[in-house]
Amino acid sequence: MELTHLIRKAARILKTPFLVLDLSYVEENYFRLKNSIENNEIFYAVKANSHEKILEMLRDLGCSFDSASRGEINKLLGLGIDPKKISFGNTIKKEEDIRYAWENGIEYFAVDSEMEVEKIARNAPGAKVYGRIAMSSNDADWPLSGKFGTDVDHVIEILKYANRKGLVPYGVSFHVGSQSYNKHKWKEAILSVSKVFEKLAEKGIYLKLVNLGGGIPVKHVKPIPEVEEIGHVVNEAIHEYLGWVDGLRIFSEPGRSMVGNAGVMASKVVLRSRKGTQDWVYLDVGVFHGLMETIENFRYEVVVDGKENHETVSMTLAGPSCDSVDTIYDEVELPVDIDYQDIVYFINTGAYTIEYASPHFNGITPPELYTVEELEVLVEKAEEELKEKENKVN
Amino acid sequence: MELTHLIRKAARILKTPFLVLDLSYVEENYFRLKNSIENNEIFYAVKANSHEKILEMLRDLGCSFDSASRGEINKLLGLGIDPKKISFGNTIKKEEDIRYAWENGIEYFAVDSEMEVEKIARNAPGAKVYGRIAMSSNDADWPLSGKFGTDVDHVIEILKYANRKGLVPYGVSFHVGSQSYNKHKWKEAILSVSKVFEKLAEKGIYLKLVNLGGGIPVKHVKPIPEVEEIGHVVNEAIHEYLGWVDGLRIFSEPGRSMVGNAGVMASKVVLRSRKGTQDWVYLDVGVFHGLMETIENFRYEVVVDGKENHETVSMTLAGPSCDSVDTIYDEVELPVDIDYQDIVYFINTGAYTIEYASPHFNGITPPELYTVEELEVLVEKAEEELKEKENKVN
Repeated sequence: MELTHLIRKAARILKTPFLVLDLSYVEENYFRLKNSIENNEIFYAVKANSHEKILEMLRDLGCSFDSASRGEINKLLGLGIDPKKISFGNTIKKEEDIRYAWENGIEYFAVDSEMEVEKIARNAPGAKVYGRIAMSSNDADWPLSGKFGTDVDHVIEILKYANRKGLVPYGVSFHVGSQSYNKHKWKEAILSVSKVFEKLAEKGIYLKLVNLGGGIPVKHVKPIPEVEEIGHVVNEAIHEYLGWVDGLRIFSEPGRSMVGNAGVMASKVVLRSRKGTQDWVYLDVGVFHGLMETIENFRYEVVVDGKENHETVSMTLAGPSCDSVDTIYDEVELPVDIDYQDIVYFINTGAYTIEYASPHFNGITPPELYTVEELEVLVEKAEEELKEKENKVN
Repeated sequence: MELTHLIRKAARILKTPFLVLDLSYVEENYFRLKNSIENNEIFYAVKANSHEKILEMLRDLGCSFDSASRGEINKLLGLGIDPKKISFGNTIKKEEDIRYAWENGIEYFAVDSEMEVEKIARNAPGAKVYGRIAMSSNDADWPLSGKFGTDVDHVIEILKYANRKGLVPYGVSFHVGSQSYNKHKWKEAILSVSKVFEKLAEKGIYLKLVNLGGGIPVKHVKPIPEVEEIGHVVNEAIHEYLGWVDGLRIFSEPGRSMVGNAGVMASKVVLRSRKGTQDWVYLDVGVFHGLMETIENFRYEVVVDGKENHETVSMTLAGPSCDSVDTIYDEVELPVDIDYQDIVYFINTGAYTIEYASPHFNGITPPELYTVEELEVLVEKAEEELKEKENKVN
């Protein structure tokens, strides 16, 4: 999102670190995706950012929700969201949570193993299950295969097994990897999905659902395919490979692409030092307080307030805790004159940031989270207090 | 710590995951360290585990405390701990926190850069500062150099600078790396410390403090030097290199070695599956809910209840969230017959586990933490409830 005048002012006046959320970006992301993929039922992946304001806005837009746990399900039900609009997309579920979800009206469950099928059959008889295909994710920043999904032949066996166990083999899901750069991955995946549809149709099992997962990227430091381009690939692939399926339903599970560009993290330089030949810059935000994805060298755009066009050199950027794993980037280009108290922004950090944060690691609390509207109120209040102080001095 | 009958019973009856703490181990660890290093003033590194019961017990034993932040300082002061027994050992401090610490009576501050000296001079004039030497930590499981500490010559310059700025150059600290296996590292470090003492004495600056940091290891899967062996090396090195210093004070900052072996994590298998040629086991505890140190492949002893002596094979062990980084070990030996609902213990997990945990990542809450005494009460209550249920059925 844009670094507005308000955010820049807030970073100077308010205590850092904080994360600003602009919900208008979420709304725009929702409609861009909706308009890019035909007949697309969007299930927002709650784990990307479970802030209530985001969930409420998406609920009011008519969005559905993909949940990872009973905790998320409870949060969604508590917001009055229809259980018919909730999927239980984690392939690793506790039995009591499956039962809880089913008893509360949730119908869609992800599977990628025989044992999970058995657990669902015992606790949610008649539920609709979709098998998850594993994809190689060389083109993604945050790979998701290995732990999740399995090969096409195995998915076919699992869905046949689900059928025998009295469940409804409903469809196939995949995930191209979070923050995926290659739009053609979706075509490859849909081709694999169609093989499952075909093989099962031969056995008289007619699937209805292709679940596109997530993976649509957010703009950081590399060029990305736009959602419209990805949608074009998806639409074509679905026509080509799954055009023959009657009443096909198309789910997607965007997380990052729904909220990533709706956030900016504002932090301050606490210390700059030189050790040997290396320059170190330490911030009041770090890996264990909101920037967890940087442990895999996930690259955010980093902006130093007022020094955007200054000459840069390679430095090490680290967080405030007594832990060396709390090093954000071993090497990152920063302004040569970056200094104590400079404001440092991490752009497009609305997804997978605060969610990971420990509430008290090293006794340090995570960044505050403000919507733009809340920020306006806070800045106004802080400015008034400053004025009053000045008046008292004069 | 030992897997007692009580813990095994609790894991069968209570909801997992949970972490059990046996405070008697903390007491024993305290006295073993106290008796191993002569004149040793122990500053417990609160960040290892900030549970109040641990802090209260150590307070009552006469222990001092090393804090990483204002949050930790507030917690310690709130427990009635004398500020004279608190150090501010983070080399990355906010100015307002330095001022807060100083105004609340804290005297000892760590430094490893000129800028930090300036911040302390502005906010805590007259404070005692100790310069941190960086050590190579090839022999440690969790390295701490690079981000913290600097070379001997730089520490000398920094302490001279502190002297010019009106601070008290008080001593030198180091950290051999967390979970260090080589006892001779301490000797090497103390030799480096003595060089700083000597060089500054030549300039009329007489240091008083050697701060040994932490790094004393906890027994996991590799043999470790005992604290008495490390103490022997330290005592000899101090006599040899710093025997000439009048009124020398010796601080240590144990975190892991004070609480690591006082904890056991109990979890359950949620899913077992085979993908391609690899066996996967998924637990209800994972990287983002207490086992963060495994991201650097930190190895805990893993015990599967009742299958301790079964044949093992290499499997992948993963946590319950929809995140592939939540994979505990890519390869670990587990019983061939490990199965759904088996209880899996992670031994000696009292340090640096719950502290990292996100309160709601993927909607999953972190493990509950119980002391042995609390566990006894809970198990008794759960057993009574079970009996009542049985009586009703009969």
